[in-house]
Amino acid sequence: MKNKLVIDPNIKSWIDYPSNTHFPIQNLPFGIFSNHDNTRRVCTIIGDTVIDIHELYRCVALQNIKTKKFIKDLLLNDYCNDLFSEGKELIRALRSQIVELFEEKNKKHYERLIRTALNNIKDVNLHIPIKIPNYTDFYSSREHATNVGIMFRDPANALFPNWLHIPIGYHGRASSIIISGTDIKRPAGQIVLKENEAPIYSKSKQLDFELEMAFVVSKENKLGEPISCDQAEDFIQGLSLFNDWSARDIQRWEYVPLGPFLGKNFASTISPWIVDLDALEPFRTEGPIQDPKPLEYLSQTGKNNFDIKLEVYINDSLVSESNTKYLYWSIKQQLAHHTVNGCNMQIGDLCASGTISGPSASSFGSMLELAWKGTKPITLNDGSQRVFLQDGDRIRMTAFAENSNYRIGFGEATATILP
Amino acid sequence: MKNKLVIDPNIKSWIDYPSNTHFPIQNLPFGIFSNHDNTRRVCTIIGDTVIDIHELYRCVALQNIKTKKFIKDLLLNDYCNDLFSEGKELIRALRSQIVELFEEKNKKHYERLIRTALNNIKDVNLHIPIKIPNYTDFYSSREHATNVGIMFRDPANALFPNWLHIPIGYHGRASSIIISGTDIKRPAGQIVLKENEAPIYSKSKQLDFELEMAFVVSKENKLGEPISCDQAEDFIQGLSLFNDWSARDIQRWEYVPLGPFLGKNFASTISPWIVDLDALEPFRTEGPIQDPKPLEYLSQTGKNNFDIKLEVYINDSLVSESNTKYLYWSIKQQLAHHTVNGCNMQIGDLCASGTISGPSASSFGSMLELAWKGTKPITLNDGSQRVFLQDGDRIRMTAFAENSNYRIGFGEATATILP
Repeated sequence: MKNKLVIDPNIKSWIDYPSNTHFPIQNLPFGIFSNHDNTRRVCTIIGDTVIDIHELYRCVALQNIKTKKFIKDLLLNDYCNDLFSEGKELIRALRSQIVELFEEKNKKHYERLIRTALNNIKDVNLHIPIKIPNYTDFYSSREHATNVGIMFRDPANALFPNWLHIPIGYHGRASSIIISGTDIKRPAGQIVLKENEAPIYSKSKQLDFELEMAFVVSKENKLGEPISCDQAEDFIQGLSLFNDWSARDIQRWEYVPLGPFLGKNFASTISPWIVDLDALEPFRTEGPIQDPKPLEYLSQTGKNNFDIKLEVYINDSLVSESNTKYLYWSIKQQLAHHTVNGCNMQIGDLCASGTISGPSASSFGSMLELAWKGTKPITLNDGSQRVFLQDGDRIRMTAFAENSNYRIGFGEATATILP
Repeated sequence: MKNKLVIDPNIKSWIDYPSNTHFPIQNLPFGIFSNHDNTRRVCTIIGDTVIDIHELYRCVALQNIKTKKFIKDLLLNDYCNDLFSEGKELIRALRSQIVELFEEKNKKHYERLIRTALNNIKDVNLHIPIKIPNYTDFYSSREHATNVGIMFRDPANALFPNWLHIPIGYHGRASSIIISGTDIKRPAGQIVLKENEAPIYSKSKQLDFELEMAFVVSKENKLGEPISCDQAEDFIQGLSLFNDWSARDIQRWEYVPLGPFLGKNFASTISPWIVDLDALEPFRTEGPIQDPKPLEYLSQTGKNNFDIKLEVYINDSLVSESNTKYLYWSIKQQLAHHTVNGCNMQIGDLCASGTISGPSASSFGSMLELAWKGTKPITLNDGSQRVFLQDGDRIRMTAFAENSNYRIGFGEATATILP
């Protein structure tokens, strides 16, 4: 706790930005960008200005950063993994030094020196920020699991018996996680049109989004050595917004007994920025009361959820407003559970929350729930209706935490559906 | 077909080996080894002689190998991925040239030149041969799926309705795949001792092996572009023996509805050698008749299974004899299904078959089936009995194809269970 870097809310930057920007100087998330020369590099962002951190280093040396590695190798890098592997203290020193360079009072001293590090976001390409060795998807929203249980099983016993004891999770596909802005193709596969009929080969007719938040692992444990709940956040660098695209018809036919496979692994969309856990510190909140009490290895105290507002738009119509605070199982509990059997985490591993639904119908995190299994079409601003997604639909998710001082935002996870 | 490299069965090597070796000159699998200097390098093996391929290159230049890359970078490498990424033609040229160097008639010409490339297997360490970006486990043995269905569901409807239509698969954990010879720790987690009681935290009491064969992907498809059954083997370099350790009690409590997770991801053991599909060409055989006929994208003709004998030993007691020929779904069908939705494969991806059980009780590929859910203990040579695995047990799997000329073997996938 003591070492966390929470940047003074009163600090302003000499880079101009509106008060509702996702990226005030208090955020400083990490990403990967390229510009005209196509070389990928580690960056951060203030307002609309993407900051080339290697160029900062070249201009002013970043003397706070202590490492035995070549800083150039960490920053002129296709991914953030190597930088994160240096550990949280280095990351804190780096973000702290960036604050110094960009705070208003130091404008005269630094502006001319580091101007070559600044890029307008319109002039750059953002790339997937991490190389993901392993991807896990949890199922941590009680409301989502309950909705699914009511729709497909038994309203009176919507949750499976294990759900209140285990942060249920399963392995997903890392290769098909793509950066926001990449279009996705509607997947084909086996679907069953009428119950008890033979399957046919078809494009999915029930393409859906899933509104999720994902954490990025930045420290490894050895195989056979669990991570405790108390230690867990030391292993987590930050969070990204995540859309776990789902083809419900493919999924429904395939998933018994070994879980979702082709219904999910055609694509998942991640937002470009990894928002540091430290930047989210002011937005901690308590999660739902857990009853029954979890087993000892899952026990936690304090504020382990985050108050982050989530929105989903279809073609600019707002269709869902949710919040990560609704999640039943915290990221600490997810990671402690994931490793209780000794499973080893690797740097860059991504663990997503599962669909985040809230208590009200307007806060459900998937079309499956919003249109209630196809029975309650939702109406968009243009008057058209949806029960699942159509070709050409543009799905935009966004997320931010806010208080009276500033917003800490995640940018977007956006994609358009191609036929 | 036309370009496959099937090495003349009459060729003998000037390296001596017994007729039942797993590694005649007709095999030439790839692996990764290190010796006194601890540098990992690509190797192959003839008899008991591990051959340093970079050293061969240094000694005799391997002039058949045409690549724009530095051959040194491909061979002085921690993994075989970069070599495999060069494509099957290069691999064929390389294996063909190794045959030339080691065939008996060329002994005088080459033996002195390349002796520094030879290492006795006792003097080296073998390492995991590939870096695995994504690991998928299928469920392709009808006998195994049927046994599980009889034990846990309904003997009259043992297979789920989807099983005869889909090569069922799910994503596994790549990080915890370890090389043969690495001990494994018995995992802990949530288990339920009596039905309807609350779970407890405990070491697994039902640790099991799963006898599997896995294929290694050596060519990438783009996201959104399926691989057809006809193309599939162009994307597969070869096979390895695989033990997908399972904690049945952890698995049983967690797996509904999203599939196995902590019951599997604590460890999987892979054999050190990737046996080239070309070397297995003489052992092709037809698989079981598929009825109902699979959908068009899964249709295949010819001999798509392999006749490879499989054995499992507990502390030197033979407990199972199975064969990959029993698999209902072929590797072609597995890969075509995996990508029918556009899922992208990456070089080094590992796809395991699922437990390979045959029709007779002695051919079942897991303790769950051999001891029939704990009801029929099996007796080892020392008179002790097992229903699941005990601490200290050494599980050794081995596999080989054989004809009147030679064996093409896989070596072993072996591990001892630590408490």
